[in-house]
Amino acid sequence: MLTRGIYTLPRAPRSQLRSVLCTSKRRLASCIQTPKVNQDRLWKDIHYTCQWGKGERWGKGENETGMSRLSLSDSDRMSRDWFVETTKSLNCNVQVDAMGNTFAVRKGRQQGPPTCAGSHLDTQPTGGRYDGILGVCAGVEMLRVLQEENIDHEYPTLSNINEEGARFPISMVSSGVWAGQIPLEKAHNLQEVGGGKQTMRQELQRIGYLGTLEANYEAMPIGAHFELHIEQGPRLEARNHKIGIVQGVQAYRWHTITVKGRDCHTGTTDFANRSDAMLTAAKMILHSHRLATKHACLASTGILTLSPGSTNTVPGTVRFSLDIRGGEDDRLMGLENQLKTDFHKIAHNEAVDDLNEGGTIGRGCTVEWVLDAPSKAIKFDKDCIQCVQDSAKELFGDEHESLTQTMISGAGHDSVFTSHRVPTSMIFVPCKDGVSHNPMEYCSPEDCANGAQVLMNAVLRYDKLRAERAG
Amino acid sequence: MLTRGIYTLPRAPRSQLRSVLCTSKRRLASCIQTPKVNQDRLWKDIHYTCQWGKGERWGKGENETGMSRLSLSDSDRMSRDWFVETTKSLNCNVQVDAMGNTFAVRKGRQQGPPTCAGSHLDTQPTGGRYDGILGVCAGVEMLRVLQEENIDHEYPTLSNINEEGARFPISMVSSGVWAGQIPLEKAHNLQEVGGGKQTMRQELQRIGYLGTLEANYEAMPIGAHFELHIEQGPRLEARNHKIGIVQGVQAYRWHTITVKGRDCHTGTTDFANRSDAMLTAAKMILHSHRLATKHACLASTGILTLSPGSTNTVPGTVRFSLDIRGGEDDRLMGLENQLKTDFHKIAHNEAVDDLNEGGTIGRGCTVEWVLDAPSKAIKFDKDCIQCVQDSAKELFGDEHESLTQTMISGAGHDSVFTSHRVPTSMIFVPCKDGVSHNPMEYCSPEDCANGAQVLMNAVLRYDKLRAERAG
Repeated sequence: MLTRGIYTLPRAPRSQLRSVLCTSKRRLASCIQTPKVNQDRLWKDIHYTCQWGKGERWGKGENETGMSRLSLSDSDRMSRDWFVETTKSLNCNVQVDAMGNTFAVRKGRQQGPPTCAGSHLDTQPTGGRYDGILGVCAGVEMLRVLQEENIDHEYPTLSNINEEGARFPISMVSSGVWAGQIPLEKAHNLQEVGGGKQTMRQELQRIGYLGTLEANYEAMPIGAHFELHIEQGPRLEARNHKIGIVQGVQAYRWHTITVKGRDCHTGTTDFANRSDAMLTAAKMILHSHRLATKHACLASTGILTLSPGSTNTVPGTVRFSLDIRGGEDDRLMGLENQLKTDFHKIAHNEAVDDLNEGGTIGRGCTVEWVLDAPSKAIKFDKDCIQCVQDSAKELFGDEHESLTQTMISGAGHDSVFTSHRVPTSMIFVPCKDGVSHNPMEYCSPEDCANGAQVLMNAVLRYDKLRAERAG
Repeated sequence: MLTRGIYTLPRAPRSQLRSVLCTSKRRLASCIQTPKVNQDRLWKDIHYTCQWGKGERWGKGENETGMSRLSLSDSDRMSRDWFVETTKSLNCNVQVDAMGNTFAVRKGRQQGPPTCAGSHLDTQPTGGRYDGILGVCAGVEMLRVLQEENIDHEYPTLSNINEEGARFPISMVSSGVWAGQIPLEKAHNLQEVGGGKQTMRQELQRIGYLGTLEANYEAMPIGAHFELHIEQGPRLEARNHKIGIVQGVQAYRWHTITVKGRDCHTGTTDFANRSDAMLTAAKMILHSHRLATKHACLASTGILTLSPGSTNTVPGTVRFSLDIRGGEDDRLMGLENQLKTDFHKIAHNEAVDDLNEGGTIGRGCTVEWVLDAPSKAIKFDKDCIQCVQDSAKELFGDEHESLTQTMISGAGHDSVFTSHRVPTSMIFVPCKDGVSHNPMEYCSPEDCANGAQVLMNAVLRYDKLRAERAG
């Protein structure tokens, strides 16, 4: 049980501090009294839950397999069952809404919407053991510590599961419905990608997670949302930082670009008589990269298909994805508008830098854009960010500046949707080589625990802040 | 029946000449006595045989469907049966070899290997009504005219069928075996592309075209090979030319290029930390086009696949076909060697023109080349070319210079293989918009007849030349 009071342990030198972080039984010097997460227990929870939906083996170690736990699959059901049973045993009241969002609430001293730590348990088809899973297990670890140490908090505290969205064709769809950003019916009727016939509603029902609670922020209000996640990129590791204090999520816009030329024989058609859709697409992809660099944005092509697809036929049609991202909406739209102008010019043999030079001018192509998914830039809540920052300071002491970095999330998360309705922010921890959505995804036990520690501290700080403000 | 003698019709003005070309009953001014092909009969043969293996409909007209008559299919068998029955009825001796090459020989006054007009009856899966079919039907028309007009030629004359090769994974495989360039066993064991289990030998046997004649230029020698074919490109049409006098076939080399980088998340990985295989491939494709222009060669990418293929994942692997072609072997190898040096540099962020400029230097990729199919440049036989040229002159009179063009074939044909063993050349006729390997492929009745006329005249000229040389 926690004895309240200011700890006055002398500041440990860095090497010692690390060992402190690795052992859960000792408490760190701190400006507020907080308990310590149990690193070993957290690590065990993460890998215990990974028995359901094991993916590709990539090493010989016990934990060296990836994950393939698609949303609403049988393995997903088993991991959800574990979450429900575990949180119930920790005296939580568990509720499931009509989108399968699962809320495990621990009572506080006061009435009011709970302060939440949440993420998702489902994975990519060839995913790893940390994306989402770490955030949920850290929430469970928070509940375990609160229970074990018998901590009183002001408002109810909540750990929950949202949805990753690799199986049905909208990402974070369950938090999106909760936030009123996606209609329930549309979400329920989503069919599996890859040819399956089941709808989301059918699968929710089949696995027993079509809850009776309305999937809505008004039916199930929360006070704030904190999400711990692996960074899924290389920036923390590159600078040997331990915690990313996430300020928001960059805007992105996903497009499908179709370039149409004309099929012709590669041997019999000279360059001047071609409408080469592949060559034109190659120029566009290179240009999108250069222009994104100029605008301090990102541009990526992850899908490209061409037709008819024969070595000796110049492709008449190329279709490619263009994912552009930027920290600010205006900057991103500036990039997009310039790309639209320039792609048209590239297709019509007009000058864009030197792209149409040095080769042979052909007959030109046409280009069409279809916007598949727009997402505006998100700025997280200042108070939430401050709580994360203070918690990192508490954990790292004087070294906090050299061990943390403020950053923008490059990827979307459930927190994007929650931020539409409640104060939200995120905590990032490093993942090895920045690798994610890959069986080899890895986050060290120490980094997992650091993240869980900052998560719990931030939830408790925000809880305290709410009480202070309520007077 | 042909009345021999020099025709002395006054030269027709061009517009009138055209109408002369369009009617088969009249004879054109000529320096040697040659009969006239029957345009209507040829046109009927072409479209009669297209009842077997009808493809996609692209227009409302009777003949406005494409062809899908894969080699050794049931529809291919029916068209082969037609060829055998028709040529037998024209007093030909028909022999089939172990690769299904079918030889219909009309006796000449002298013993000796026959002078041949040949092409193929099978088509691409989404092919048209003229590629190959025109050449075979023109050979049959030649036999019809010789029979009808009771023409005596010196050496036996032959019309034959080789093989296109869209179903089994080597093009022109049957003429390749005949020419001793492809081992019989290898050809017999070829399995269908696209997952079918049948071998070529099994299918030859099934449709009754596994002949007893040895598939070899020594077992079935021929004296020369002429092939009429649609151009499959736009050059004749662009200059309003009617006959292409083909000098040879350009060299080509087909490669598969594999670029390897690393999968990463499009949102969370900045440009500097990427190994973007798609961006790298785009630079290579653009560079191959520019460098081919400089070397007066061709370069084309008709297949590109990437992995893993998700909008928000930067592809770690891109594999693309690179088909390079040129009129001379040395020039083509010069291009290839420069591309190998430059692709390596592009992948490793070294300067190649400005390709790696204007963007962000990432972590680099690797690049691997695999040579799939090399084919050296072919120069056709001078005497055969001269016979084609003289025949065109005979057909067009004074206008022949403005109606013909000498050209190199961009595509491979059975004539590439026959040219290894016997004097060979080809005759091209225009096809609409240069379109081929497409249901909409079109060659006008007049152009078909012009080509068939030049083919027959060239065969008879070469027959005469052989006799003169034999003394």
